[in-house]
Amino acid sequence: MQFETLSDIRAALAAAPKPDATALEAAKLRNSQLTKPPAALGRLEEVAIWYCGWRGNARAQIDAPQVIVFAGNHGITAQGVSAFPAEVTVQMVANFEAGGAAINQLSMLAGAKMDVHALDLEQPTADFTQGPAMDEAAFLAAFSTGWGAVDPASDLLVVGEMGIGNTTAAAAMACALFGGTGDDWVGRGTGVDDAGLARKTDVVARGIAANPEARSDPWTALRCLGGREIAAMAGAIAAARANCIPVILDGFICTSAAACLEQAQKGALDHCVAGHLSAEGGHRKLLDAIGKEPLLNLGLRLGEGSGAALAIQIVKGALACQSGMASFAEAGVSAG
Amino acid sequence: MQFETLSDIRAALAAAPKPDATALEAAKLRNSQLTKPPAALGRLEEVAIWYCGWRGNARAQIDAPQVIVFAGNHGITAQGVSAFPAEVTVQMVANFEAGGAAINQLSMLAGAKMDVHALDLEQPTADFTQGPAMDEAAFLAAFSTGWGAVDPASDLLVVGEMGIGNTTAAAAMACALFGGTGDDWVGRGTGVDDAGLARKTDVVARGIAANPEARSDPWTALRCLGGREIAAMAGAIAAARANCIPVILDGFICTSAAACLEQAQKGALDHCVAGHLSAEGGHRKLLDAIGKEPLLNLGLRLGEGSGAALAIQIVKGALACQSGMASFAEAGVSAG
Repeated sequence: MQFETLSDIRAALAAAPKPDATALEAAKLRNSQLTKPPAALGRLEEVAIWYCGWRGNARAQIDAPQVIVFAGNHGITAQGVSAFPAEVTVQMVANFEAGGAAINQLSMLAGAKMDVHALDLEQPTADFTQGPAMDEAAFLAAFSTGWGAVDPASDLLVVGEMGIGNTTAAAAMACALFGGTGDDWVGRGTGVDDAGLARKTDVVARGIAANPEARSDPWTALRCLGGREIAAMAGAIAAARANCIPVILDGFICTSAAACLEQAQKGALDHCVAGHLSAEGGHRKLLDAIGKEPLLNLGLRLGEGSGAALAIQIVKGALACQSGMASFAEAGVSAG
Repeated sequence: MQFETLSDIRAALAAAPKPDATALEAAKLRNSQLTKPPAALGRLEEVAIWYCGWRGNARAQIDAPQVIVFAGNHGITAQGVSAFPAEVTVQMVANFEAGGAAINQLSMLAGAKMDVHALDLEQPTADFTQGPAMDEAAFLAAFSTGWGAVDPASDLLVVGEMGIGNTTAAAAMACALFGGTGDDWVGRGTGVDDAGLARKTDVVARGIAANPEARSDPWTALRCLGGREIAAMAGAIAAARANCIPVILDGFICTSAAACLEQAQKGALDHCVAGHLSAEGGHRKLLDAIGKEPLLNLGLRLGEGSGAALAIQIVKGALACQSGMASFAEAGVSAG
């Protein structure tokens, strides 16, 4: 899918399907009959029912999860916002392709197909303290790449990213989408010191000042303050919705991409669950803003989709119980 | 192993091995060289290093996890402490053997061998409001069964339980081990109402009153207020230590069994990680008492080993990264 205009994207989002109400009810009924006290599997039950609704099957299973890692480079790295040099983006893409990164191990463990899309790494986005990070054509191309990267045959999606400088871009987007100042949204990313943190806060403030129109529209926020990989993540999450593929959101950067969709159209993230709470400063606040409670809280702050890939196991566990357990009647167990 | 006296158990605990200091240091060094910012995998890094220390291998993997479910019946069920009738214990054992319970699905998903040990179900322990739940012979037999159930070739252990009435037994044990009153430790178990909760609190108080010696010694607390499946869990956790097999603790009942070991010998649980925080009332307090922070917090309160079995995936994820990732040097990535 190549989106030619922003209106095409808006129309695709407006046409997004809803969960299957019949499967949802059947999943709830089945859950109530399984050999366990009511609600004893806690959040696994809610996750299983949610997933079954989207898949239109009260005994759904997860057989084909997909992990996609998008990579992009950022003009703002010139401002000293990262503990790592910008060339690490391309080096890490090579590491993904060679199978050496954390996300490779976690994808393999989860039985997920993993794809890597490097987006014009030789062409960083513009420094957003000087004006928009992307023009409309660059934004539409990146969003379309993300949309097209989703395998319609997959049954669960994780989107991750790599892009030196992108926690600053995500913080600027969050600031434009939800207000506050840079202080509210920046964190230490790959590990900047106090001076680096102050630079990030300042860069966010200058980015917002240089792109005042970003405050008024989420798509503009994404285009002016985001990056190619962030726009691609938004595209992939939207494509998953169009295909009724549930999504596990990763950390701060992934959530900033998702938040644009939610701000553009309320309910756009109904097919998404938050995989984990990142240790990155603004993530809790960003999850609160989109009304998502994370499945895991293990202090991860790596990106790449790592926290969400780990959470695939939790969603698989939920479905394994929902779809594999015997009912009280089948097992001959006395109900309480 | 058949323990003939309590002294034999004490001696086995005193002879417990420590983690391999060389492997521990090598694991820390390896962790510091992997292609990620320092500490970016959060708690996964700590878990991986801990596991490698116990396995004596800086690139350890998990190939043979074992889940053991112990079942026992409790005399105190006559006091109306559960939402389910006592016959559910034997019915659920049949369900475990037929593969229909939650723990079957979660064990399969984790690639774990699952064993079920039903301990004299036709002989419930004595009602501990009238005197000791078990005599010394019954306690030693149950502990020995647990010890013998551990496969020395396994490389990760989860112990779970089934026993209608056993949240009350666990609460009484916690009360004897750590003080306070029944109110501090009882919860709703499989789902008792307010009146049931009040009965549980009262039963704990009467159990402590009828077994005053339980306050003075953890083994006596386990024998007088616990149950066969709880004693077996303690035996299995101790056997895992003797074999340098790391253990993932499950919920309130499993933790009460583990807490006896820790109270009997400080450091006895160094080979254990807390798998999850149960929704059962006293679990957080019990974990605090033994100094363990749970990996998961998903509102589970099923027992069976379910929360810990789910957490196998987290520990596997930690080891997959520790042992599978490339170093900065191997991947040609610039360090920060």
